[in-house]
Amino acid sequence: MKSTKEFRQKVRTGEWVDQTSGVEFDIVQTNVVILPKEYAFDFLLFCQRNPKSCPIIEVLNPGQFEPVFSAPEADIRTDVPRYNIYKDGVFFEETYSIEHYWSDDLVTFLLGCSFTFEHALLQAGINLRHIDQSKNVAMYKTNISTETSGGFHGPLVVSMRPIKKDRIIDSVVITSKLERAHGAPLHIGVPEKIGISDIAKPDYGEFVEIMEDEEPVFWACGVTPQAVALDSKPSLMITHSPGYMFVTDLVSADIK
Amino acid sequence: MKSTKEFRQKVRTGEWVDQTSGVEFDIVQTNVVILPKEYAFDFLLFCQRNPKSCPIIEVLNPGQFEPVFSAPEADIRTDVPRYNIYKDGVFFEETYSIEHYWSDDLVTFLLGCSFTFEHALLQAGINLRHIDQSKNVAMYKTNISTETSGGFHGPLVVSMRPIKKDRIIDSVVITSKLERAHGAPLHIGVPEKIGISDIAKPDYGEFVEIMEDEEPVFWACGVTPQAVALDSKPSLMITHSPGYMFVTDLVSADIK
Repeated sequence: MKSTKEFRQKVRTGEWVDQTSGVEFDIVQTNVVILPKEYAFDFLLFCQRNPKSCPIIEVLNPGQFEPVFSAPEADIRTDVPRYNIYKDGVFFEETYSIEHYWSDDLVTFLLGCSFTFEHALLQAGINLRHIDQSKNVAMYKTNISTETSGGFHGPLVVSMRPIKKDRIIDSVVITSKLERAHGAPLHIGVPEKIGISDIAKPDYGEFVEIMEDEEPVFWACGVTPQAVALDSKPSLMITHSPGYMFVTDLVSADIK
Repeated sequence: MKSTKEFRQKVRTGEWVDQTSGVEFDIVQTNVVILPKEYAFDFLLFCQRNPKSCPIIEVLNPGQFEPVFSAPEADIRTDVPRYNIYKDGVFFEETYSIEHYWSDDLVTFLLGCSFTFEHALLQAGINLRHIDQSKNVAMYKTNISTETSGGFHGPLVVSMRPIKKDRIIDSVVITSKLERAHGAPLHIGVPEKIGISDIAKPDYGEFVEIMEDEEPVFWACGVTPQAVALDSKPSLMITHSPGYMFVTDLVSADIK
């Protein structure tokens, strides 16, 4: 995987500070959550109890910054284009490197991301409007509770994609096979049934129109663990900036 | 699931102190590992990194003794027929209840067990000699390393079942679908290839003969996490006694 190493090298040297949507499209990108060890058991158990929203790609040892399974020789302190730093649950700053925040006490969680299943849907000829329109996918807080672990609790966040009615079965079958990229959808059709009162006003990302021959399809979203972790107000939490993901060496077949 | 509740009631009152092999055969039984919280993150991460030997059925919150997912109303302190107590990695005693050991600091791990896939094999008409002969399955330490986490490391332990050559493909297909009961085999045929020098001398359990028309088939075994955890010499570790498993309310379809 020479090209992913080259890409991460560009990120490391500051040559690439942009979003990663569409970069190395057949490659697994991940959400990043970094927490002090005192929160690590509760958060790992939260991920284990909520596998659809928090599919684990790799968890690093405390203090470890090389993802030896998913991206050997990478450095999680420098190889994400942009990081968000949160202190006591409050946004503190956006940064290009976290070397100055690093300590042996920090545990890195790499969690699956919908980019993987979007690639599979596009390959099957299922169009995705937010990609056609170069928008962020629309994301919503729902009335579905996550399974609590320690201080980590809160509502499930979903992403929504309008799918043509005659391709809905295909979209369920295709994504059901990618369990570590959120898997099958959680709901199809009626936003109110999962607590979304106004589909035109997403909580994160941008709304895209739903046509007559389409239904809105809702998948568990990787924003869930970040939202939940923030609510628990850890002393320090570091994440990627939304859209600026970590690019691994894995291909989607590796995480089936 | 009235009958599993009734069974656990018998265990709780001391009416049942026997092995659980064959009890409620269509029901998921689990390995039990209980550790103080200081070891819980490293051990949970060990399970996450070694899903074939340590498939997680349920992890309880620190201090929690009711497995609300797999067996609501059960009490893990009293509902296992026999427990082994280890102190600093050394066997201390076998006991029928762990109420006097319990504290809010203890974390319970329920891990998948081969009873589930044995049931599926038998249903497909694949005979299992150790069951025919009322023996414990033969288990071996291998030269396959587990993925380390913190102090937890050591060789993978496998269980061996002789399978008729014309049913080997079926046995792979059937068990591959039961990922949380150890999944597909790790090796077929040549014990030396995985570091087993004398197939007639298992490290645990009892040897059964391998006939001319059979091959030995090796699956990852739930003894692995116990062996690995013991090697790390935790101050306290509580497990079920081998063969005296925890009977849940789940059926195999629940853990697919």
